[in-house]
Amino acid sequence: MASVFGKNLVVSIFGQSHSEAIGVVIDGLPAGFEIDMDELQEFMNRRAPGRSKNATQRKEADKPEFLSGLFDGLTCGAPLAAIIRNKDVRSQDYDQIDEMPRPGHADLTARIKYNGFEDYRGGGHFSGRLTAPLCIAGGIAIQFLREEGIEFSSKIVELGGVDLRPYYDAENVQDVIDELISAAKKEGDSIGGVVECRITGVPAGIGDPMFDGVENRISQAVFGIPAIKGIEFGAGFDAARMKGSENNDAYMMDDVSPDGASSNDMSMNDVSLDEGVPYDQELGITGRGGITTTSNNAGGILGGITNGQDIVFRVAVKPTPSIAKEQDTINYFTGENAKIKVKGRHDPCIVPRVLPCLEAAAAIVILDYML
Amino acid sequence: MASVFGKNLVVSIFGQSHSEAIGVVIDGLPAGFEIDMDELQEFMNRRAPGRSKNATQRKEADKPEFLSGLFDGLTCGAPLAAIIRNKDVRSQDYDQIDEMPRPGHADLTARIKYNGFEDYRGGGHFSGRLTAPLCIAGGIAIQFLREEGIEFSSKIVELGGVDLRPYYDAENVQDVIDELISAAKKEGDSIGGVVECRITGVPAGIGDPMFDGVENRISQAVFGIPAIKGIEFGAGFDAARMKGSENNDAYMMDDVSPDGASSNDMSMNDVSLDEGVPYDQELGITGRGGITTTSNNAGGILGGITNGQDIVFRVAVKPTPSIAKEQDTINYFTGENAKIKVKGRHDPCIVPRVLPCLEAAAAIVILDYML
Amino acid sequence: MASVFGKNLVVSIFGQSHSEAIGVVIDGLPAGFEIDMDELQEFMNRRAPGRSKNATQRKEADKPEFLSGLFDGLTCGAPLAAIIRNKDVRSQDYDQIDEMPRPGHADLTARIKYNGFEDYRGGGHFSGRLTAPLCIAGGIAIQFLREEGIEFSSKIVELGGVDLRPYYDAENVQDVIDELISAAKKEGDSIGGVVECRITGVPAGIGDPMFDGVENRISQAVFGIPAIKGIEFGAGFDAARMKGSENNDAYMMDDVSPDGASSNDMSMNDVSLDEGVPYDQELGITGRGGITTTSNNAGGILGGITNGQDIVFRVAVKPTPSIAKEQDTINYFTGENAKIKVKGRHDPCIVPRVLPCLEAAAAIVILDYML
Amino acid sequence: MASVFGKNLVVSIFGQSHSEAIGVVIDGLPAGFEIDMDELQEFMNRRAPGRSKNATQRKEADKPEFLSGLFDGLTCGAPLAAIIRNKDVRSQDYDQIDEMPRPGHADLTARIKYNGFEDYRGGGHFSGRLTAPLCIAGGIAIQFLREEGIEFSSKIVELGGVDLRPYYDAENVQDVIDELISAAKKEGDSIGGVVECRITGVPAGIGDPMFDGVENRISQAVFGIPAIKGIEFGAGFDAARMKGSENNDAYMMDDVSPDGASSNDMSMNDVSLDEGVPYDQELGITGRGGITTTSNNAGGILGGITNGQDIVFRVAVKPTPSIAKEQDTINYFTGENAKIKVKGRHDPCIVPRVLPCLEAAAAIVILDYML
Repeated sequence: MASVFGKNLVVSIFGQSHSEAIGVVIDGLPAGFEIDMDELQEFMNRRAPGRSKNATQRKEADKPEFLSGLFDGLTCGAPLAAIIRNKDVRSQDYDQIDEMPRPGHADLTARIKYNGFEDYRGGGHFSGRLTAPLCIAGGIAIQFLREEGIEFSSKIVELGGVDLRPYYDAENVQDVIDELISAAKKEGDSIGGVVECRITGVPAGIGDPMFDGVENRISQAVFGIPAIKGIEFGAGFDAARMKGSENNDAYMMDDVSPDGASSNDMSMNDVSLDEGVPYDQELGITGRGGITTTSNNAGGILGGITNGQDIVFRVAVKPTPSIAKEQDTINYFTGENAKIKVKGRHDPCIVPRVLPCLEAAAAIVILDYML
Repeated sequence: MASVFGKNLVVSIFGQSHSEAIGVVIDGLPAGFEIDMDELQEFMNRRAPGRSKNATQRKEADKPEFLSGLFDGLTCGAPLAAIIRNKDVRSQDYDQIDEMPRPGHADLTARIKYNGFEDYRGGGHFSGRLTAPLCIAGGIAIQFLREEGIEFSSKIVELGGVDLRPYYDAENVQDVIDELISAAKKEGDSIGGVVECRITGVPAGIGDPMFDGVENRISQAVFGIPAIKGIEFGAGFDAARMKGSENNDAYMMDDVSPDGASSNDMSMNDVSLDEGVPYDQELGITGRGGITTTSNNAGGILGGITNGQDIVFRVAVKPTPSIAKEQDTINYFTGENAKIKVKGRHDPCIVPRVLPCLEAAAAIVILDYML
Repeated sequence: MASVFGKNLVVSIFGQSHSEAIGVVIDGLPAGFEIDMDELQEFMNRRAPGRSKNATQRKEADKPEFLSGLFDGLTCGAPLAAIIRNKDVRSQDYDQIDEMPRPGHADLTARIKYNGFEDYRGGGHFSGRLTAPLCIAGGIAIQFLREEGIEFSSKIVELGGVDLRPYYDAENVQDVIDELISAAKKEGDSIGGVVECRITGVPAGIGDPMFDGVENRISQAVFGIPAIKGIEFGAGFDAARMKGSENNDAYMMDDVSPDGASSNDMSMNDVSLDEGVPYDQELGITGRGGITTTSNNAGGILGGITNGQDIVFRVAVKPTPSIAKEQDTINYFTGENAKIKVKGRHDPCIVPRVLPCLEAAAAIVILDYML
Repeated sequence: MASVFGKNLVVSIFGQSHSEAIGVVIDGLPAGFEIDMDELQEFMNRRAPGRSKNATQRKEADKPEFLSGLFDGLTCGAPLAAIIRNKDVRSQDYDQIDEMPRPGHADLTARIKYNGFEDYRGGGHFSGRLTAPLCIAGGIAIQFLREEGIEFSSKIVELGGVDLRPYYDAENVQDVIDELISAAKKEGDSIGGVVECRITGVPAGIGDPMFDGVENRISQAVFGIPAIKGIEFGAGFDAARMKGSENNDAYMMDDVSPDGASSNDMSMNDVSLDEGVPYDQELGITGRGGITTTSNNAGGILGGITNGQDIVFRVAVKPTPSIAKEQDTINYFTGENAKIKVKGRHDPCIVPRVLPCLEAAAAIVILDYML
């Protein structure tokens, strides 16, 4: 089930960086939905390469061709299949990979796993290019969920070790990002970062205990994006440094003005006070208004189940492994140490392109729960 | 499939904190294996409550009773079922939960999810007590995997915000741990921490790309342990702060003395240099010795597949939500803000008890792959 | 996933014929349901051995003990676990199975599959006794589904090659059944039969195309009952002998009196004319009444999806393989041909006991769809 | 998971009869295998329409285009995707389906399931055309399994109610088949039949007990082929008419000449006497030769696990529902009874085209087990 995800919404991703095409099959989409193709294309464009001067210059329209699942422009209940042809392929750039594994890539592990028969061109099935079909599926899921009042957003909170959050207020964050990436590019090196994803509007009560909780499933999906090496929900690793009295999100009725005093300054995890859990007589709740929390260190999830607050998680994106600098590696055929300078067109930083992928992965998970 | 995990090894966990019994069914264990019951009991004891003066005083033998799956003391291919009776139950301590959700617990989300019919006593199915059956399954998996040369270990690397790693060398780490927990207890508060788990001996080539990689599946399993709010592999979030040239693990032939110069000082992720990937003529590798890496920032996993180095991951454990201090909450029935002082016997710190759970969860994942 | 079934309702069965206990874990039952324990026991009793003078004299109360999943007598959302202790075990009867496989049983295949470590006593995990936990799960599912207006029934339509359908009208069918079984017993032999199961009240639109259709899933569940060797839906194998014009179930509006002329005389598959598909303006249906069919050769399923008519299927139950007569077999240890007379207490005919098992398996499938 | 099948080999099928393309994604194929494309095409041709004067005249090359999963002509471990463009589409033939459901088709159930948004043209995703991608996956699986000595074959044993088995000996079976189909065509009607599939060379010990047995999984796959209404293994429904002493397959050492006396004359299920289970000292078997059976009423499967004999199963194929004759139906929009004469090009008998589909479905199941 390596490239298949989901229970009620089953997403099957296929393709290699340099195969004829890449694509996705989505089984389980409700019938009768009209996909906004322009919006989907814009979503795809956020991920696509060649969009900024710092990103890889490989140019792909990344325009999905729909093969099935639509009828008269609406989903029809049958599995939806979409592909993207791989046009701008310069496979010769990758000949060296047949001889030497690139450090930080899956070249060696793929060679071992597939007994030397792996498609090593451009990383094959392990390429970041495979996030394009993920974004097709996720972009559609996002459109479905908007109808339920659920929205996805994400932002870079840390880049190359620099905390970007102050710069969002100063409104010059894009300058800082460009500068950091340009500097890395100049050195022939690359940088990583931390991205935060926020999901608003998910009703309370979504998820399951134990192995099927929202954290479990989002993690399982998100580690499908290459370069992710860590994930944390709500206060995450910072929660491990708090006391229980600080980390616990206190409950309150949301018709009462909050004192605004979150027990800690987790601005990333700001609670959405207007999204209280609605009352329910049958659950023994008789008051006015809704139940909310005064902080959101839980990231909207307790016991694997949503509590009505924003779902907030952050992921660690490692620096792009493909760098211009010479690196130590080995030669498969001589069995000797070797030096490699990775050829090809590569991003000095893929962090900005991770954002739509993260939203896509999360949307697939949430839609799977909601169906 | 909330409480069911695995593909070839299917683990089904059941029980509530105060139900008649808790237990596990394990389907897919190879036949003919003799479980070392003493070793399993020792493993269970590491998790069990009431073992130290700081831990909860609830005393349970936590001795599994095996109902099926064994014949003449050996696994027989049939599903193995084991239960632990819940004996020392003081349900009256939990009456308040029926009225008021405890901050930081799954009380409210369970009430919403199960329409008010949840077993709220002691957290019900969400209780940390349910890690006991997880440890039965994991403890058995560990014994199986030892036969394949695979070993699991874990340690607390951070507690209550204090980096414990220096104290391991000084050999007084247990004193420091006891002190930190005692201090929290005295305050009527609780602390969390960061635990690192290391798996040695996993052969290269285990895992899958995309959604079924080792990181995906370990995450999915590990978030099944209550109180885990984050996970990172290898350098994890620190990788996001490195340059590509620092984070990439360079390859080398392991018959060559390493210069010892890991590009960064990630002592937690020390590479095991004696565990190189063996040569294989068919893969085009002709030298002597094996392929290894000079650092292990990847935590043994690239593209979801093991590279033969140690698998290393760390998790964030939040502070125990049950604290003696008064907290803000609401009353379901009056719909008004309220104050709660959580009754019952609780750990001021569950971090030490998380260690075997983490090893158990990881072992279930690895055994599932190996079958 | 050998002994695990289902997607939204996950049923895990464990136990061997002579293990400490047999049991089942059911994950996914909605919370707040009160199981009628008396009705469940009556359902269990229909399957239990020792109930008639012709059935095996092994006496088991088959009274489930509930370990988890209930709170104050209601389902609470947590996995429900129930066990039955194996009390009346005469293992010595089975010593011969360690030496010689019984023809028609799974003794040999289990020995090969489990490398000689199988629990051969009484057929181990392959024993018909394992249908008891299936009936616990199914009996509960039946109670859930009754609330939705869905009912399960079954009857023996053929026994030992004799068509029983005429005798149902004559009301002496039980005499005929007893006579046929007694005759087989007297010979030291056994007989099989064909059982029909009918599910009424399933709404139209349940199921899925391709591999997840109602036929696919009922088959997958039903072949989990030992001794089943065939299944057919609606007209089944007889459909293969009809022309299209005879087999197609014509549609009609059900406010029009049917002419009663089913194109063929498939009394087994009688259509329930009062169960038409309700009109739906949105689907472009403007008339009064509902859509129904004039026959039910499809057995209520087209394209894997229910059409609102009764779901009807029949299974072939092979004759009990355990017979008193001497049979040819081999001796594992001498590698020579041998003779076996199967010891122990066995049914000359298990067909009557298959009925509740069939209803149970079908109910688990339908409830899984409905959740 | 409607159109997704398998555990270790995951097959995802997509497409509608008149969508842009139909296709399949196959995840889990071992790397390094060279697909014989000519052989695959021949296999596809057995299923393809327009091949005989009696079959539908819709002409599709049914030539798969491979989009991913191959590298240098070999499987590379990545998911293999293949599509077939739908070229020869005459959608206008199907306009009537928007108004009136065709009896015997999934038109009505699809409309209900998908709330009126189904692609009704040519049956949409429910069309027999979707067996083309099934045959791509199955044709490849067959090639893989041949390397393990496993072969698949099938034949029509009954057509339009006529037992064809005597004609196979007389070698004029094709004449009889053509005659029966021509006769049905002349009447504007259609016929069905019974097809037997035989798998040779499957080693003993493949499969699992309960819900994951070979019978369970083959059934689940085979009911994915439209028009199948029943399945039986080995003696199947005839087993229900035998005594235990007749139905039980006696064991014998295969170096001993069999007396040839199968307890019944089930020529369809002839045992393959040269395929005994090899001896294994460790299982306590010390003799020469292998263990075999003197008959094969079990169809090669006991307790869900193979015993080394041929796997034999038969399916009931209903007569093609599309017939030229006028039939009773209803009109969705007027809500009144109506008459339909199904337009379009249709087979008076699809039974011959079912053969490769059956082999394909069975091969996918067996390969899934073997991986």
